[in-house]
Amino acid sequence: MTDATVTIPARKGKAARLPAGRAIKVINTPGTQVVDTWAFVDGDMTEFMSMEHSRAAMNRLTPKIGDTLVTNRRRPILSVVDDTSGEVHDTFIAACDRWRYEGLGVEGFHDSCQDNLHAALAELGLAATETPSPLNLFMNIPWDLAGRIDWKPPVSEPGSYILLKAERDCIVAFSSCPQDIIPINGVGCTPQAAHFVVLDGAAF
Amino acid sequence: MTDATVTIPARKGKAARLPAGRAIKVINTPGTQVVDTWAFVDGDMTEFMSMEHSRAAMNRLTPKIGDTLVTNRRRPILSVVDDTSGEVHDTFIAACDRWRYEGLGVEGFHDSCQDNLHAALAELGLAATETPSPLNLFMNIPWDLAGRIDWKPPVSEPGSYILLKAERDCIVAFSSCPQDIIPINGVGCTPQAAHFVVLDGAAF
Repeated sequence: MTDATVTIPARKGKAARLPAGRAIKVINTPGTQVVDTWAFVDGDMTEFMSMEHSRAAMNRLTPKIGDTLVTNRRRPILSVVDDTSGEVHDTFIAACDRWRYEGLGVEGFHDSCQDNLHAALAELGLAATETPSPLNLFMNIPWDLAGRIDWKPPVSEPGSYILLKAERDCIVAFSSCPQDIIPINGVGCTPQAAHFVVLDGAAF
Repeated sequence: MTDATVTIPARKGKAARLPAGRAIKVINTPGTQVVDTWAFVDGDMTEFMSMEHSRAAMNRLTPKIGDTLVTNRRRPILSVVDDTSGEVHDTFIAACDRWRYEGLGVEGFHDSCQDNLHAALAELGLAATETPSPLNLFMNIPWDLAGRIDWKPPVSEPGSYILLKAERDCIVAFSSCPQDIIPINGVGCTPQAAHFVVLDGAAF
């Protein structure tokens, strides 16, 4: 990894500014780690990447290479330039939150992707007005034709990645999902760090 | 129809209070009409029915008889008691909005489900803090195993309905979808009125 590689610590979040035209490589370092992902328009936190608008724009349930995700005002925000992870991601499922862990029987505090989003933005002096439904990178939620869904470990190899290009100036935020009750982060139920690196236009 | 039947006018919205234990019958009067549907906790508009939390709770992409939809705090809010419409509904697609119609080439004003939600709540003296992804009743968005989706007319028969029971005191809001560019409201592309009636516990 280069000096420019940023760690998304295990169970925690990290945000960064991503200018238009640059790309961010989000790396599934252990191969088993789900990374909840958000993007907000730089300068207007009320406009953000929206799964329900993106599915309509893509005519697809999950993004593949060449697809463009859009905001809640239907403007392009991130496009998928490359993906070595197997192209298995999720747009169906909410970020985990305190109520999710309460429902799973956890007593007391548990890290959550929702808290991680807001903490990561706060590190940049920013605040979201809501918690958009995330793009859950590497999360494996298969579906069938009857509409049933299942919760499976990621299919990604260690070090595989997705490369997302900014279609406008944005703030990206990530959470290394702290889910350790069900095996969505691998059968070991052990959340681990993931990484990202911002690339300039000449690098991709 | 009884005196208690309420009209959701063509292209417009309507909201109502629905106390816990009561049910609301949402009727696809012409058979071809999509009805975007929201529910908010009475007394706290920041807690509302959430498609991304409901898919996780139901382990299903769309609700069927017996399923319970939950809020963004993962508490039950509406459950499906009965459904004569063919059980084809959508949870993937955002409410239509001014940007959707701009993208479809409409110049000037066009009614939208997003505007209808906020106008319907305003009639009750209420305001939503955001636009949750709606439960699109009767909307036919088939998917395949590769994740491709399509936009089809409803499969419901005229007068068919879904019966939703309130699991807590809530505000329900509906929009008779004004989409008249693509045939999501039937091949005639003619939005029409739908109806609802609130039933007490003895009636279902």
